Amino acid sequence: MLIKANDPKRKSWLKVEKGCDFPIQNIPFGVFITKDDIITIGTRIGEYAIDLGAFHQLGYFDDVPLTDDMFMQDSLNDFISDGRKTWRLVRNKIAEVFDAENPRLRDNEKHKEIIIFNLEEVEMLLPISVGDYTDFYSSKEHATNVGVMFRGKDNALMPNWLHMPIGYHGRSSSVVVSGTPIRRPYGQSIPKGEETPVFGPTKSLDMEVETAFITTDANNLGEPISIDEAREYIFGMVLLNDWSARDIQKWEYAPLGPFLGKNFASTISPWIVTMDALEPFRCESPKQDLTPLSYLNQKTTNNSFDIKLRATLETENGDINELCKTNFKYLYWSMEQQLAHHSINGCNVRSGDMMGSGTISGPTKNSYGSMLELSWAGKEPITLKDGTTRVFFNDGDKVILKGYCKNDEVSIGFGKCIGKILPAVKPK
Amino acid sequence: MLIKANDPKRKSWLKVEKGCDFPIQNIPFGVFITKDDIITIGTRIGEYAIDLGAFHQLGYFDDVPLTDDMFMQDSLNDFISDGRKTWRLVRNKIAEVFDAENPRLRDNEKHKEIIIFNLEEVEMLLPISVGDYTDFYSSKEHATNVGVMFRGKDNALMPNWLHMPIGYHGRSSSVVVSGTPIRRPYGQSIPKGEETPVFGPTKSLDMEVETAFITTDANNLGEPISIDEAREYIFGMVLLNDWSARDIQKWEYAPLGPFLGKNFASTISPWIVTMDALEPFRCESPKQDLTPLSYLNQKTTNNSFDIKLRATLETENGDINELCKTNFKYLYWSMEQQLAHHSINGCNVRSGDMMGSGTISGPTKNSYGSMLELSWAGKEPITLKDGTTRVFFNDGDKVILKGYCKNDEVSIGFGKCIGKILPAVKPK
Repeated sequence: MLIKANDPKRKSWLKVEKGCDFPIQNIPFGVFITKDDIITIGTRIGEYAIDLGAFHQLGYFDDVPLTDDMFMQDSLNDFISDGRKTWRLVRNKIAEVFDAENPRLRDNEKHKEIIIFNLEEVEMLLPISVGDYTDFYSSKEHATNVGVMFRGKDNALMPNWLHMPIGYHGRSSSVVVSGTPIRRPYGQSIPKGEETPVFGPTKSLDMEVETAFITTDANNLGEPISIDEAREYIFGMVLLNDWSARDIQKWEYAPLGPFLGKNFASTISPWIVTMDALEPFRCESPKQDLTPLSYLNQKTTNNSFDIKLRATLETENGDINELCKTNFKYLYWSMEQQLAHHSINGCNVRSGDMMGSGTISGPTKNSYGSMLELSWAGKEPITLKDGTTRVFFNDGDKVILKGYCKNDEVSIGFGKCIGKILPAVKPK
Repeated sequence: MLIKANDPKRKSWLKVEKGCDFPIQNIPFGVFITKDDIITIGTRIGEYAIDLGAFHQLGYFDDVPLTDDMFMQDSLNDFISDGRKTWRLVRNKIAEVFDAENPRLRDNEKHKEIIIFNLEEVEMLLPISVGDYTDFYSSKEHATNVGVMFRGKDNALMPNWLHMPIGYHGRSSSVVVSGTPIRRPYGQSIPKGEETPVFGPTKSLDMEVETAFITTDANNLGEPISIDEAREYIFGMVLLNDWSARDIQKWEYAPLGPFLGKNFASTISPWIVTMDALEPFRCESPKQDLTPLSYLNQKTTNNSFDIKLRATLETENGDINELCKTNFKYLYWSMEQQLAHHSINGCNVRSGDMMGSGTISGPTKNSYGSMLELSWAGKEPITLKDGTTRVFFNDGDKVILKGYCKNDEVSIGFGKCIGKILPAVKPK
């Protein structure tokens, strides 16, 4: 598949540092607010935020069929709803206008002033109004690690795990954009060996290194999405840190699953990187242990993406400590399988729905995507540069996820997904 | 508390049959579409739907401070967001204008033609754009019944159950309004004693007799709602049938809770009955077995409502079979406790969020709120009028929930919450 906007040879007249996540081949979509309090949909090249509302108003989308206010919105939902053809035309046009050889905007200082901002001049907002947020549990390594810790080696994977992408519904209201501080939650937990719960701030605040994909309007209620057409309904991806309070989760989760242990916050990166931009990094998905039921049986095998994921911890003294290096390609269940499974009962999927991968752990110890696994449930505390140790996170810790793809020609990345932990505040 | 619109002596100049759920003391809110394809917010008196958009445009809300388009919307979210003061002023004004003694609209035939519709002339739509849908599990009788069936009498209630209102997140996209047909879902299930799942239409399609409350904007992320202020954020209630496919649920639910076994459809009644209208039916909540943690400890004891709930099954030959008679007042955890618990970790609650009670079962066999309990997991099939039996529902079955409150002076009800089961359609 040839996607014009992906041409690796193209350079932009906007400065892009080597290795930057946002070369002209990326063209992600986000929402930001300017110093003048104008909220707009935008894209990013290098360290510049581009106001697509102004870009459109000034006529640069000339031959692309778009409603007048398509980009003057506080979420991408309507744009995503417009479908793949529009996404492609828009990315292609942006690539064309910002191409180093194209003088049209490059040489129009007045327009550049209206359209282009330094990143520091804008504040990124949540890119979508999240309709439903689903979180899967699709990393075999993660599910196995958790299983070994809690149920022992012999019963590590639940009997259903290899037969379907297990998932559950998360909370949409508390999905926040990178940079939003994370307040340590209060809740109930059960001290070991006790029968009566105690109440207090969580003692086991954890990250979950995930990605999430964002869907467009896919199906009517009652009509499943087939595995073959699922790909058509995925707009793009973000990084996701699905914050977890393990002590709260442990006490509450039987029999209905995680609730308050998760729904206090889920952080996503601000720029949605389109599936089109990620296409050059498509790779083989892991061979599946069992042939799944036909509605999950994918004809293609290159159903994954080589997206390198990193989690680091910045302590209050400014030290950067690497926590883990993992990769999206380790994920056992593909996004198409997740979407086909989610809708096989007729559940309807809409524009702006978000589906998390679940914690992505790799095969090696340094590739585990949660502190629970990295510290092996507290048995192996992690020593930081300043000599302190962590089993879970402390107040003041800043957790930073990064994700990027890289080949000989180009790097495409997600930027950062950041959350700094604030101390708990005693409830009134 | 004196609520003007609740005056039991008031009669309307619109005809209201004795015992009707919608006397002038109810004044619920809903959204409907007229024959002319106009979508509007409305209320109901007797068998009449009242277009509040037109009512407002024609000046009947004269001294109530409202934006011009407050009722010309396809959901109640903005109206609910406006807060209790607005809800009260609006209900009071409607009560005043439709009072039998008030000639203003009564004697204006031209305006009546624009504002008032026979119910059959309009189609009820979903009253809210559901932000997040949470379902609790707050009936002790239901949790105990399920526990006895699956874990035996001695371990019926999970250890956490008496310490907090257990809940989980449901799916917003598949919340549908009464009357929407329910397609029997396909899915995976595990035959007894087998290790490999089978795929097919659910064999155990069940109802859950519930109510749900609808919230207004309540708290910022990170700031819990206190038990004392929780009541302020509840706008009103609806009937809820949380359809469940027990075989799918059973196979998938460990460890993350119900997912495809529930998210294919949840039906709600179209009219949101305000908490103000329900106030005369406030009653004592069940005495709790344990004193809960302080954030759940309510100073008041009259935290429940005497809402009679009925489930009936209409078979295709037109027979109406009573399935159960239960009551909201049996619910162990109050709505305030549910809301305080939901937000104790800082989870933010918005206008248009919906929180289900969980299946409401009472103490006697005929008061169980699900077929699972009524047929005791299939051991005691229910015999219908036509001589057929049911353990779960058949295709063509129409399940009807009703709910109403009644005292010597007035009845206030919810109308019906209906769903007819369509046969499964084989996925492509």
